[in-house]
Amino acid sequence: MNSAATFDPAEFRKALGRFTTGVTVITTRTGEGHPVGITANSFNSVSLNPPLVLWSLAKTSRSLDAFSKSKHWAVHILSANQDTLSSRFAKSGENKFEGVATKSGVGDIPLLPDCTACLQCKTTFMYEGGDHVIFVGEVVDFTHCDAEPLVFHGGRYALATPRSPQLALSTSADTDRPSGFHEDFLGYLLGRAHFDFHLRLQAEFAQHGIGDLENYVIFALNVRERCSVNELESLLSFTGHAVTLNVMQSMVERDLVQDVGDEENTVFALTQNGRDISLRIIAQSKSVESEVLDRLGYWNSVALKNLLKLLIVNADTGIPHPWNVPTPSPTVSAN
Amino acid sequence: MNSAATFDPAEFRKALGRFTTGVTVITTRTGEGHPVGITANSFNSVSLNPPLVLWSLAKTSRSLDAFSKSKHWAVHILSANQDTLSSRFAKSGENKFEGVATKSGVGDIPLLPDCTACLQCKTTFMYEGGDHVIFVGEVVDFTHCDAEPLVFHGGRYALATPRSPQLALSTSADTDRPSGFHEDFLGYLLGRAHFDFHLRLQAEFAQHGIGDLENYVIFALNVRERCSVNELESLLSFTGHAVTLNVMQSMVERDLVQDVGDEENTVFALTQNGRDISLRIIAQSKSVESEVLDRLGYWNSVALKNLLKLLIVNADTGIPHPWNVPTPSPTVSAN
Repeated sequence: MNSAATFDPAEFRKALGRFTTGVTVITTRTGEGHPVGITANSFNSVSLNPPLVLWSLAKTSRSLDAFSKSKHWAVHILSANQDTLSSRFAKSGENKFEGVATKSGVGDIPLLPDCTACLQCKTTFMYEGGDHVIFVGEVVDFTHCDAEPLVFHGGRYALATPRSPQLALSTSADTDRPSGFHEDFLGYLLGRAHFDFHLRLQAEFAQHGIGDLENYVIFALNVRERCSVNELESLLSFTGHAVTLNVMQSMVERDLVQDVGDEENTVFALTQNGRDISLRIIAQSKSVESEVLDRLGYWNSVALKNLLKLLIVNADTGIPHPWNVPTPSPTVSAN
Repeated sequence: MNSAATFDPAEFRKALGRFTTGVTVITTRTGEGHPVGITANSFNSVSLNPPLVLWSLAKTSRSLDAFSKSKHWAVHILSANQDTLSSRFAKSGENKFEGVATKSGVGDIPLLPDCTACLQCKTTFMYEGGDHVIFVGEVVDFTHCDAEPLVFHGGRYALATPRSPQLALSTSADTDRPSGFHEDFLGYLLGRAHFDFHLRLQAEFAQHGIGDLENYVIFALNVRERCSVNELESLLSFTGHAVTLNVMQSMVERDLVQDVGDEENTVFALTQNGRDISLRIIAQSKSVESEVLDRLGYWNSVALKNLLKLLIVNADTGIPHPWNVPTPSPTVSAN
C-alpha cells in the first residue's frame, strides 16, 4: 500500500483507477443545433423511483456550455467493440460525429447506434463538484441489448470473463485426494482442450488417409513452403513425433509432397495434391473453430486466445515458432 | 434493443446493469461508536482538485442516519478475492465486522484490510437524489496497491483479462495469406500451449524411461486405480496413442504396472514403483504449473482455466472424463 503522506495527484489518479468502470459517451445538442458528445466513465445510477442517473463534467470542458443549457442528454453505455468510438469522443475535435449514423432522440439529441444500453435523460439537478459539475438526470426513455459491454480496468480496456461458473467437467471429480491428478490441473485442461479440438479435425485427415504426423508436416510446409527433413524435425519435434526420411518418402509416394531440392540437398514442398488437401484441412479447421467459438461467445474467445498467447510467451520452451522465418542460411543436408 | 414504452423498473435495472463497475464497501461509525458498513457500486470519482468522490445511499437504508451524522467515511475498493466480504456487507445484519481486523482511520472510522484501494473522506455535500442521497466527500487520505480489483459485470462477479496485448507470438507472423494457417488459429494456440506445457514434463518422464503413452497410462491408473486394457484404450484413445496388451506387458516388465485381475480377466494397477513415479510426475506437474501460473498472474490463470473448461464443455467430443467413474459393470475381458 502506498500511503499518501502528501497528496500526490498522480497517486490519487492511480487509487481511483483501481475502481473498474464501463465506458459511456454522453451526447446532447448545442443551442445552434450542433451535436456534442464526450466520453465519460464517471457515470452511475442514483435512484430507481424516480429513475435518476448522474455523471460529472469538468468545468473546463468545451462541452460544459452545451450540457448546461440543454435540457436533454443521452448516456450511451458502450459495447466491447466500440473502443474506437470511445477514443474518438474522448479527444477534443469538431468532427466526432462524422460518419456515425445517429438517430434523433428526445429534444432532438443525437443517439449513437450499437451501444449495449442508451438512457435518454432530462436534467434534474446540476450540483457543485469541485473542478467538475455533477449532472443528475431523470431517465425518460431507454433501450438495452445483450452486446458485451466495454470495460475500463486498471487504466486500460479489458475483457470481462466468467468468474464463478465453478464448472466441474466430471460428474464425480474427486478433488480431495491430496496427491492425485485432478481436473483443475492446467496441464490436464490444456491437453484435454487440445485433443478435443484436434479430434474434430481428425475425421478430415482420415478422409485423405493422413495421420497426425503427416498433418503436422502439411501444416509446416503450408507455413514454410520449403523445408529440409532437419528443418521439419526441428519445427515438429514438440509434437512428440519424429520426422524421418522414411516418413517423407511415404508422403512422396502418396503425392502429398515432392522433393524440390538439388542432387546434394533434399528439400520438400507440397505437391498440388498436398496443397489441395492442406486447403481442405484449413477450411475444416476454420469451420470447427467458428463452431466452437460461437458456442463460447465472441469475447470469451478473444479472451481465451489472449490468455493462451500470454501462457505461450510465459511458458516458452524454445520451440521454434513456425511463422518465424529463419535467417537465410545454407540449405541443410537431409539426413 | 428493448424499448421501454412504459417504464418497467426491472428493465431499467437491466439497462443500468450494462454498465460494469468495481465494488466498494463504505464504512463509518455511529454516534455511539458502532462500526457501520455497506456494499455499494454507485461509487465514482468527481474532482481532482479538490479531490472529491461520490456515492449514493438509499433513503430507506438503516445506515443513512450514521452516514448523515458522521463527518467521515471510508470507501474501500474491493480486491478480486474479497467477494465474500462484498456479500457480507451487502446484507443487513448486526455482525458484519465480526472477525474482520479493522484499523482506525480519520475520525476513528473502521478501515478494512486487503482492499485494492482505500479512500478516507470527509463529507462535503449531501445532495438530493430521488430515493437516494448522494454523498460527496473530500479525500483526506488514501492508499492503493496492485491487488486485482473485484469486478461486477452483467449482474455477476467477473474477471477482467487483458484485451489488447495484441500479442504476436512470431516476429514475422504472416496473417495476410487469406487461405493459410496463421498463429491466431485456436487449434494452433491450443496445440502450442499444450505441447509447451507437456514438454516441460517430459524431462521428468524421461528420467524414468517413460514415454508419452506410458505417462498417460500412469495418469489413468492414478485416477481410476484398476483398468482393463479396453478401459485404458477407451480412456486414452483421444491422445492418438493405441494402448495394447504389448504396451502393458512392457510396463509390467519394468515394474510400473501389475496384473491384479483373475485368470479370466486381465486388470492392471500401478505397482509401488509405478505409484512412486506417478507421485513424482504429479509433483513435477504442480511445480511446472505453479511456475507458469506465477508468470501469468493468479487471476489470469483462474480466467484461463475457466475459459478452457467452457471450451471443453462446448467442444465436447464424447471423450470419457477420467474422473467419471463408470457405472459398475462386469469386468471387460482384456483383448
